[in-house]
Amino acid sequence: MIVRKLLFFLFLFFVLQGVDAQSRKVINLPDISGYITLKCDFHIHTVFSDGTVWPTIRVQEAWEEGLDAIAITDHIEYRPHSKDIVADHNRSYEIAEPLSKQLDILLVRGAEITRAMPPGHLNALFINNANFLEREDVNDAIKEARDQGAFILWNHPGWKAQQPDTTLWWDEHSALLKSDMLHGIEVYNHSSYYPEALDWANEKKLTVFANSDVHAPMLTKEDEHRPMTLVFAKSRTLGGIKEALFKRRTAVYFGNTLMGQSSVLEPLFFGSLDFKKAALKLTNKENKVVNIKNNSDVDYELELVQPGVGFDAPETITLKAHHVTPLALSGNSEEINDAQNIDVYYRVKNMFTDSTENILVTFSFRNN
Amino acid sequence: MIVRKLLFFLFLFFVLQGVDAQSRKVINLPDISGYITLKCDFHIHTVFSDGTVWPTIRVQEAWEEGLDAIAITDHIEYRPHSKDIVADHNRSYEIAEPLSKQLDILLVRGAEITRAMPPGHLNALFINNANFLEREDVNDAIKEARDQGAFILWNHPGWKAQQPDTTLWWDEHSALLKSDMLHGIEVYNHSSYYPEALDWANEKKLTVFANSDVHAPMLTKEDEHRPMTLVFAKSRTLGGIKEALFKRRTAVYFGNTLMGQSSVLEPLFFGSLDFKKAALKLTNKENKVVNIKNNSDVDYELELVQPGVGFDAPETITLKAHHVTPLALSGNSEEINDAQNIDVYYRVKNMFTDSTENILVTFSFRNN
Amino acid sequence: MIVRKLLFFLFLFFVLQGVDAQSRKVINLPDISGYITLKCDFHIHTVFSDGTVWPTIRVQEAWEEGLDAIAITDHIEYRPHSKDIVADHNRSYEIAEPLSKQLDILLVRGAEITRAMPPGHLNALFINNANFLEREDVNDAIKEARDQGAFILWNHPGWKAQQPDTTLWWDEHSALLKSDMLHGIEVYNHSSYYPEALDWANEKKLTVFANSDVHAPMLTKEDEHRPMTLVFAKSRTLGGIKEALFKRRTAVYFGNTLMGQSSVLEPLFFGSLDFKKAALKLTNKENKVVNIKNNSDVDYELELVQPGVGFDAPETITLKAHHVTPLALSGNSEEINDAQNIDVYYRVKNMFTDSTENILVTFSFRNN
Amino acid sequence: MIVRKLLFFLFLFFVLQGVDAQSRKVINLPDISGYITLKCDFHIHTVFSDGTVWPTIRVQEAWEEGLDAIAITDHIEYRPHSKDIVADHNRSYEIAEPLSKQLDILLVRGAEITRAMPPGHLNALFINNANFLEREDVNDAIKEARDQGAFILWNHPGWKAQQPDTTLWWDEHSALLKSDMLHGIEVYNHSSYYPEALDWANEKKLTVFANSDVHAPMLTKEDEHRPMTLVFAKSRTLGGIKEALFKRRTAVYFGNTLMGQSSVLEPLFFGSLDFKKAALKLTNKENKVVNIKNNSDVDYELELVQPGVGFDAPETITLKAHHVTPLALSGNSEEINDAQNIDVYYRVKNMFTDSTENILVTFSFRNN
Repeated sequence: MIVRKLLFFLFLFFVLQGVDAQSRKVINLPDISGYITLKCDFHIHTVFSDGTVWPTIRVQEAWEEGLDAIAITDHIEYRPHSKDIVADHNRSYEIAEPLSKQLDILLVRGAEITRAMPPGHLNALFINNANFLEREDVNDAIKEARDQGAFILWNHPGWKAQQPDTTLWWDEHSALLKSDMLHGIEVYNHSSYYPEALDWANEKKLTVFANSDVHAPMLTKEDEHRPMTLVFAKSRTLGGIKEALFKRRTAVYFGNTLMGQSSVLEPLFFGSLDFKKAALKLTNKENKVVNIKNNSDVDYELELVQPGVGFDAPETITLKAHHVTPLALSGNSEEINDAQNIDVYYRVKNMFTDSTENILVTFSFRNN
Repeated sequence: MIVRKLLFFLFLFFVLQGVDAQSRKVINLPDISGYITLKCDFHIHTVFSDGTVWPTIRVQEAWEEGLDAIAITDHIEYRPHSKDIVADHNRSYEIAEPLSKQLDILLVRGAEITRAMPPGHLNALFINNANFLEREDVNDAIKEARDQGAFILWNHPGWKAQQPDTTLWWDEHSALLKSDMLHGIEVYNHSSYYPEALDWANEKKLTVFANSDVHAPMLTKEDEHRPMTLVFAKSRTLGGIKEALFKRRTAVYFGNTLMGQSSVLEPLFFGSLDFKKAALKLTNKENKVVNIKNNSDVDYELELVQPGVGFDAPETITLKAHHVTPLALSGNSEEINDAQNIDVYYRVKNMFTDSTENILVTFSFRNN
Repeated sequence: MIVRKLLFFLFLFFVLQGVDAQSRKVINLPDISGYITLKCDFHIHTVFSDGTVWPTIRVQEAWEEGLDAIAITDHIEYRPHSKDIVADHNRSYEIAEPLSKQLDILLVRGAEITRAMPPGHLNALFINNANFLEREDVNDAIKEARDQGAFILWNHPGWKAQQPDTTLWWDEHSALLKSDMLHGIEVYNHSSYYPEALDWANEKKLTVFANSDVHAPMLTKEDEHRPMTLVFAKSRTLGGIKEALFKRRTAVYFGNTLMGQSSVLEPLFFGSLDFKKAALKLTNKENKVVNIKNNSDVDYELELVQPGVGFDAPETITLKAHHVTPLALSGNSEEINDAQNIDVYYRVKNMFTDSTENILVTFSFRNN
Repeated sequence: MIVRKLLFFLFLFFVLQGVDAQSRKVINLPDISGYITLKCDFHIHTVFSDGTVWPTIRVQEAWEEGLDAIAITDHIEYRPHSKDIVADHNRSYEIAEPLSKQLDILLVRGAEITRAMPPGHLNALFINNANFLEREDVNDAIKEARDQGAFILWNHPGWKAQQPDTTLWWDEHSALLKSDMLHGIEVYNHSSYYPEALDWANEKKLTVFANSDVHAPMLTKEDEHRPMTLVFAKSRTLGGIKEALFKRRTAVYFGNTLMGQSSVLEPLFFGSLDFKKAALKLTNKENKVVNIKNNSDVDYELELVQPGVGFDAPETITLKAHHVTPLALSGNSEEINDAQNIDVYYRVKNMFTDSTENILVTFSFRNN
């Protein structure tokens, strides 16, 4: 048979082409006390709904970009390629799974319940069988997901195509929340940020997400990263992720911005930094410099919250990723000579706990 | 109907995501006397054979990268996704065609006849119906292509999977050539250069090609370009391309290298450059500088072929793309004072006419 | 003599090191009707005042970055290296001049009169002898500059070290203006923008400037440019620049922003673009695309000013530098079918005529 | 006094401009057993000889680029700026020293003895007083350096200006070596590599160096590094460096290449890598993947030295900097099933011990 003779050559060819991307990027963000920081994208499409790439490519992209986990979430109700692609709703997961195992990417089985607003589009994660989500009534579909044990999140809640004039929370979402059929919300989708979603998450105890919602090939530039959900998990397993999602231990990471609860943002911040903790011995009219090394990929942008007592500190300072930045303190009164401790208070302008608030951090040094 | 209600919203969403790439790069290479320089890629796969992207993506990629024409050339004999994708051999072309018209990308109907060596893999371009190329006997398939008026080229002739130890020209290729069933050859495929192919092309009057043979998403970096075949055509039409291919008016372009006949490389070189043609008036012990502006994307690397008569010129010089580079000449004997003309001879080290020869160029100036 | 024997070798060595930067970048901005667009930096320091590089480096940097003209403007009153560097105020110009002639960089003789506020720091350009500007009384120094025929500009008028709380125009500046001793003002200095200065320039008929005020080595990245003053001159000569400065034919160019009078910004904008002027023949419910090629280095960011009559146009569009961007128009009423012309009105968000206003541009097409 | 009033403002201004480079890059290379890996450049010029920047800039550049130590080595015999700059040979060191202390850059006092060949140019490091090196006879100058306890190295030994046709070792160098007046040699200078120097270093027990010999401003791109000498020191002190130089514990680092003795290159290589040491349990016809994380800035390029016994390993593999690269091993005979250990032998193509030899490394795994 012709075809059979070719298989070996073609396999080799594919392998040789695979040589294009032989290495996996490292995303540098610290683990935080007791938890592993997993880099995840829970909203991804393939040719099996309205995406334009084969499912294995999604695993390959995730591996190259340094992610730990992805969910393929093809639309249940919208499959424009169905004239040519004849398959059930579980197929994209099944095709991606072997490669995900080989490359050690955690693959979450998911699907996107795709309806008009309300309730809009919802991702069901950790389902067992996507086919059962194909129901006429949207509530039946969501119930089915819940009954499969799914974690359910509201996607792009302020999407202009569905909420053209304003971003609204509908009664239907309150009902879902009450019935344990809504657990999370996208604060960031693709290239859009929804500040209302961050505040709703705080108010209604929802888990925050940033997802790519990618349809086309991923074209992440070498020195950039896709929007992602950081998951603080007890273990690098599917179970570990699921537990963390239901416990709301996530953060939103897009561009140079992080969002979430201060209980995770603060350890992320300090876990990124190395600096000497020795006593400063700062006195009046003298300078001391603390060299701060930032091992993470994030440029932290600091703004002084209040003047120091007895010393000056820079009004603004950027702790550049993978660089050492000096923090220069200068004594400006005799008071500093006897100070036991020096506390310097900064606002981290690119770490948000809600739509208007940044986290505050304190650099504390012994002085004598 | 649920689905129908969604279509409008989803269409909008797709359009909004399409916003990702709103602009088309310009590839800067000059037209040459009487011909338009078209940037083409004649070897491309989709999910309809063993590629991993939907056909429209190939058109989108070509548009973004500044190409004029592509051929989608899915394998006839190798279709590993056929369990899920049920379609005939013309389908990838049909899906890509509407977008190609909208974006003004010339779309060549093609297919890859995919056999063991000899004769290996052959692309048939400008066919009418790919389905008729599915034949048990390879010669029947090639004849069918020829009878459809196809231009036929031998792909990756030194591919290690098929020619592991050496790169050979087989009797079967001589037979194809004799029967008007072989017209061109890939000198460059994906990331491999086949020097033998360049020499065969000269010897046997084959048309030279550089193609991407892309299977995965195109990940061309912003300041790079995919391997491509330059076609010097009388018009920017499918007919113009076909005529140029049969007349061998092409060049190979990969990385910073160009290959082909000097009849096209020399006008490409000088067409890239702007400099003043005024008389130099160089005299002994004086310097004159000619500022050469290179408007093309190619860094031309020059090496002096022989010393000038009565003057010194730089041993090596790089005419950097989109920069002005000074060519400094200095008189070194009284002879130069009376010279009517000054000719400076350089070898262009990144423009090849065969596997070992570069083109030679002469900068000629009046002196008095 | 040892030293003499070394000269030849060391000269060669210097030349070989000079090989580091053999090419001159091209800054792509169009000339405008009747004028050549010159790229200039009129505020530069060397080791002869408080800068840290030798004067020839300033010429070399300008040549590499594609500038046409620079002024070296060392401080008259502040020379912290004078213990080691013993020279008069004309010396930095004299050292730079031979190289500027060789590289065809127009070198303006200048100096910075450096006083407390008011009047702050003033650059005197096109002077004859900087030594005569060393005067106890600042007015004597400025008068001397004026009597030498100088063009005089106020530097960094909102510099926080001199105007910590607000940016003020002082009576002293009004007096200078009245006495023909103030002709221009820096709207942009180094990395600071002074919006008040742009409005003052309009109000008081001052010439606008953007200058680097560089002290350290220039570290412009390959895909960036230093802040510069565009001068629209009748000829590429010192006289041409001087005439243009006194006639206020300049624009401010920093980052991706241009500022100045609409009489120069509008022709800069349209001179950057290539697109077909053929009739559109747009009808209701149809789309037409105009492909706009931007040949300049500026990404023009457009925002629709008002809806079209009978057609839709994109709300926002970026005409990316050196790319082709499609402008898609779609008929939305029967009215369009009979329209003789189609006018599309955009605000160019990165071209400013004063601190709050952008220029408005109209794309006009025949329709039938 | 005018000048005094200005000082405060100008100081502030300088400080504000200094803001341009607030962060120090980190060069990622591991320490090796018992030693700290210091990044050093021992050949640097300023305006005090034929350089073109003020001495403080050299310290600033070193700090920004992540170096630990530099030597300013102005020419004794060649001072083309002496008409304007009037100072003795120690002055450039004295000017640079306060900033070096503030920024914690180790500053080595040095000078370049600059003569015709032989012996050419020699750097004297760790001298006490450069003025005493100004002697008519070159041997007197070198003796003076030695008597000050200097470490002496031969600069750019194959420099074409002094050795146009070939790279020779002269009798004069043998004499110097014998008299303890020559201890090291530049294998790499600025942008030139001298392979003979690497072999001489092995043969004659000289310490190897790579230095920038920079004259103009440093224009190192963000993702590149200057040529540097790695010093494996017992402490990050001047004394630590001096001890290491005399003990020949250095390596040459330029571009993506490292050179030196295998005793330092091998621990540099393995110290860069993280991978699991668990038993592989590879059996016939199975695959096992070892994920290797490269924490250094070097892309290590590996080439298989010999086939494995009972398994296949990749012919070539690149361990890309700051990426994870999989090493895939596949069993190819029954022999592998019982193997206690698996050793994979690679040549590191960008780590050289002499002009033709690379280091060989062995990845050793337990199998059962």
